[in-house]
Amino acid sequence: MDIFSIIKGRRSCRAFLPEPIPKETIAMILKAAVWAPSPMNAQPWEFIVITSQETKKTIFSEAETLKQDLFQKSGWKWLGRYNVDFLLSAPVIVAVVGDPDKTGADKFIEGGGIAYQHACAAAVQNMLLAAHALGLGSLWFTLFETEVMRNILGVASGKVPLAMVCLGKPSGEPLQVYRKDALEKTRFIR
Amino acid sequence: MDIFSIIKGRRSCRAFLPEPIPKETIAMILKAAVWAPSPMNAQPWEFIVITSQETKKTIFSEAETLKQDLFQKSGWKWLGRYNVDFLLSAPVIVAVVGDPDKTGADKFIEGGGIAYQHACAAAVQNMLLAAHALGLGSLWFTLFETEVMRNILGVASGKVPLAMVCLGKPSGEPLQVYRKDALEKTRFIR
Repeated sequence: MDIFSIIKGRRSCRAFLPEPIPKETIAMILKAAVWAPSPMNAQPWEFIVITSQETKKTIFSEAETLKQDLFQKSGWKWLGRYNVDFLLSAPVIVAVVGDPDKTGADKFIEGGGIAYQHACAAAVQNMLLAAHALGLGSLWFTLFETEVMRNILGVASGKVPLAMVCLGKPSGEPLQVYRKDALEKTRFIR
Repeated sequence: MDIFSIIKGRRSCRAFLPEPIPKETIAMILKAAVWAPSPMNAQPWEFIVITSQETKKTIFSEAETLKQDLFQKSGWKWLGRYNVDFLLSAPVIVAVVGDPDKTGADKFIEGGGIAYQHACAAAVQNMLLAAHALGLGSLWFTLFETEVMRNILGVASGKVPLAMVCLGKPSGEPLQVYRKDALEKTRFIR
């Protein structure tokens, strides 16, 4: 598969088969992650590979609680129906944790100090593409509270859990989704 | 090139040849961008393709001013020496602009509301990988002030310029850089 097929073929997967992922496959996905760019090459990421069913259950349970809370706050009906079972069915969840101390000179700009999050997001995208190339489905999950997730995963108070990346063999076909044409979103300054 | 070679082979390019980039190539890179995932598939990105030498000069000049300011504030010596000539030499700069209204349910979480930035960062990573696969060098530049860049590019006050992606044929070989081994950054919860 060429890079364009991989980028376009990657889909959010919300149903996984229980089949475990070999540790070599996880290692390849993490290796892809760390080759993302970061300000001053500070590599502001850490990873927690979760296969413990107990920990997944705790993450799932907190997601269910938060979902109901956000449903109340937002009034968004889909949130009430939103099924987060993928947090239980994914054989592996990789937590991506960012280090705000490893952001770049942007921390001296007013309103700055979050370039480290952008670098971590680029690392996540590498993971999703690598997973797809390796025949795995993935889901980038972000509906959690920082402090709650810190406690579940034992993350130090100075660091920030930014993404939960669910990985596994997909069960069934992913939903077809659309994108607005890129050029409709583009302006030119010539 | 397989995806792993592309991910690892991509390097920050800081010197470009003046050769223009065909518009079809730009279109391919933008198309790669929009296939990034985003919360609720809200596609919170817009692009501004800058080839105007005058606009590049303005961006360069503001970067020079900010660099000196950040050098004073930070005391980081490399900032004083940091050469931003790539803002002039790159034949194309693509500004990636995010829309905070198109973030997901994270906006109802305390401290949330920036998942749209993560999606835009994933779109940038797709652009860098696509550019590398097409034989172009790239640089993800973030040292600018939001309001200043809004004014230069004519971006509405509700939207946020998040990244300047410099693109062009590389002049010379990129610097070799290292990464810490992924597994040294990884913990397991089994």
